[in-house]
Amino acid sequence: MYNFSFQNPTKLIFGEGQISKIASSIPKDKKVLVIYGGGSIKNNGVYDQVSAALAEHQWSEFGGIEPNPGFHTCLKALEQIKADGSEFLLAVGGGSVADATKFIAGAACFDGDPLTILTEGAKVRKALPLGVVLTLPATGSESNPNGVVTRYETQDKMPFYSRALYPQFAVLDPTVTYSLPEKQVANGIVDAFVHTIEQYLTFPVGADLQDRFAEGILRTLIDNGPKALSEPKNYNVRANVMWSATMALNGLIGLAVPQDWSTHFIGHELTALHGLDHGQTLAVVLPGMMEEKREQKREKLLQYAREVLAIEHGTENERIDRAIEETRAFFESLGVQTRLSDYGIGENDIPPMIEALKKHNMVALGEHQDVTPEVSAAVLKRCL
Amino acid sequence: MYNFSFQNPTKLIFGEGQISKIASSIPKDKKVLVIYGGGSIKNNGVYDQVSAALAEHQWSEFGGIEPNPGFHTCLKALEQIKADGSEFLLAVGGGSVADATKFIAGAACFDGDPLTILTEGAKVRKALPLGVVLTLPATGSESNPNGVVTRYETQDKMPFYSRALYPQFAVLDPTVTYSLPEKQVANGIVDAFVHTIEQYLTFPVGADLQDRFAEGILRTLIDNGPKALSEPKNYNVRANVMWSATMALNGLIGLAVPQDWSTHFIGHELTALHGLDHGQTLAVVLPGMMEEKREQKREKLLQYAREVLAIEHGTENERIDRAIEETRAFFESLGVQTRLSDYGIGENDIPPMIEALKKHNMVALGEHQDVTPEVSAAVLKRCL
Repeated sequence: MYNFSFQNPTKLIFGEGQISKIASSIPKDKKVLVIYGGGSIKNNGVYDQVSAALAEHQWSEFGGIEPNPGFHTCLKALEQIKADGSEFLLAVGGGSVADATKFIAGAACFDGDPLTILTEGAKVRKALPLGVVLTLPATGSESNPNGVVTRYETQDKMPFYSRALYPQFAVLDPTVTYSLPEKQVANGIVDAFVHTIEQYLTFPVGADLQDRFAEGILRTLIDNGPKALSEPKNYNVRANVMWSATMALNGLIGLAVPQDWSTHFIGHELTALHGLDHGQTLAVVLPGMMEEKREQKREKLLQYAREVLAIEHGTENERIDRAIEETRAFFESLGVQTRLSDYGIGENDIPPMIEALKKHNMVALGEHQDVTPEVSAAVLKRCL
Repeated sequence: MYNFSFQNPTKLIFGEGQISKIASSIPKDKKVLVIYGGGSIKNNGVYDQVSAALAEHQWSEFGGIEPNPGFHTCLKALEQIKADGSEFLLAVGGGSVADATKFIAGAACFDGDPLTILTEGAKVRKALPLGVVLTLPATGSESNPNGVVTRYETQDKMPFYSRALYPQFAVLDPTVTYSLPEKQVANGIVDAFVHTIEQYLTFPVGADLQDRFAEGILRTLIDNGPKALSEPKNYNVRANVMWSATMALNGLIGLAVPQDWSTHFIGHELTALHGLDHGQTLAVVLPGMMEEKREQKREKLLQYAREVLAIEHGTENERIDRAIEETRAFFESLGVQTRLSDYGIGENDIPPMIEALKKHNMVALGEHQDVTPEVSAAVLKRCL
């Protein structure tokens, strides 16, 4: 087990009908900017619940955050903050809205060009306070200090981080996910699953409890994922998915263990160059990564097979093969396809993706920093 | 799944050599009072590490907190705080020292008789800031807002709670537990195990991830507990035990699920009247409670048998019998005896314990509030 420090300040407010709690979670004297995406919250009742909760607050709104939030959209929100004098940001949406709101919160208090937060890793030392009303369980952004913003003109997906960007609170009401399109629910489940895998499927360091927690999230997603699609109004199923997605990336399961975010980083290029949904990219890349790194990850692959998938019989290689197959089958059972060819991407498309990885300095990924561009290319070939 | 809110502000600083971090965790301009127990920290190097870390702070010390911290001892510490002008309390010890320090921190800022915090549940609205250097993994007190203080003249163990009493930080260095007496290590493992059980072994509410997390803690304690005694300097083993004890009672696994603290409350009377260690009382009472409530807890007992103990075969009743037997055997494998008779307590001693429960208003315990004094008596008979 590695040494660590952990402190997650986000207050989690979980359950049906909890959106009303934002009234007491935001100081009454703060001007609020409500930030949201494409407007689905105006059809599913969430906007009305937020409006009702903010009845005694002074607030304005900014809509139009894209699924992969754009830097230029964030700049527009910054202008509105200045015009409105907003002092508290309320993200109402999924991970994209939360990510954008974090970036906006940091940029609003940043001296200098906010682009440098993304391009140079300029440090965000303070930020406007923010909260999240989550509508899509997936990224865990609602209770972590991370985000990703995209520059559309250069096709760059750029991560940022600052402790100042933890949301003060996150409201998780599983019933607001009932009306989500199946595809978004499925992508979210894949995202949470792969977040967990990236903090688990490396090499053993004797962190038993961390492993049990990660396995618990994976099992919960496998047990509940397909039901979330077939029984969309099953409260406990949606609640288990929502809670799992938050716990997958609130920092807890990554403590004390090595991490491997290579699947995410390779996936980012698939989104940037070919427009795949984030969850789709992960469902494609992960099985290929498992194959390519099966020797380095052998012990953990066998543990995953045994503890998560209850695969007990056969040789080691047979068990690993079956674990990879079952992982692929799980994604497919959610309707998320797992081959590049399913998305019309062929071998000739791999070199541009490798160039993009190089451009973004993603040349030494993985828990051993040995996922070089050559290895990434080999992974992508296995994904064809 | 029940609705919940969760926010745990304690910063956890985990790993070998981390005690030095208290230097940067306590403001340099605050006068510190270091609070500890019987003085073992002066023999095992912890006191020296704390002294070195506080080299640039102004600090004094208060020793002599008892294993079940006494109200009158806390009053003495309060006098010293006034005399020294202490502004930050640093608990260095196990759960007793942490509990006492919390009570002292609240009492120091309390208008009125601090005894009413215990006897009348008077609300603690503010407290001196405090931190913990943990030397014994067991109670979880290092990252929760609860405590228990004993009035020796009346033999009352009295719980208290306030959000103002969360430690600001807790340092968890597994190597400081190497020199603990076996008995303390074993009692701590039993305590953490039963904390987990009390938040798990009730009835199902569809909270899959909460169940997986609780099962993960139980399995980790079963896997590491005996090794913690046979290989006392195995870092990962001690680290897994320490982390499990913290996670068992930092609030996380109790979210969204029913809880049953009846074993703890009955155990408190065994300590008060017969002087058993807290861990010993739990090892005695839990198997009796499982037997007595096997019908109400049937589903969860079967789940516990399957998911924690891998008991797959036999009738339902056989599996439950075996689960109870294996629980008892686990405690015994740690050298903690599980029968009242092992401690010289017989059937005639039960009525006074029942009277004590009534006196403390512990007359409707358990997840269904139906553990009446009669049921508690039946439980204790099963423990003979």
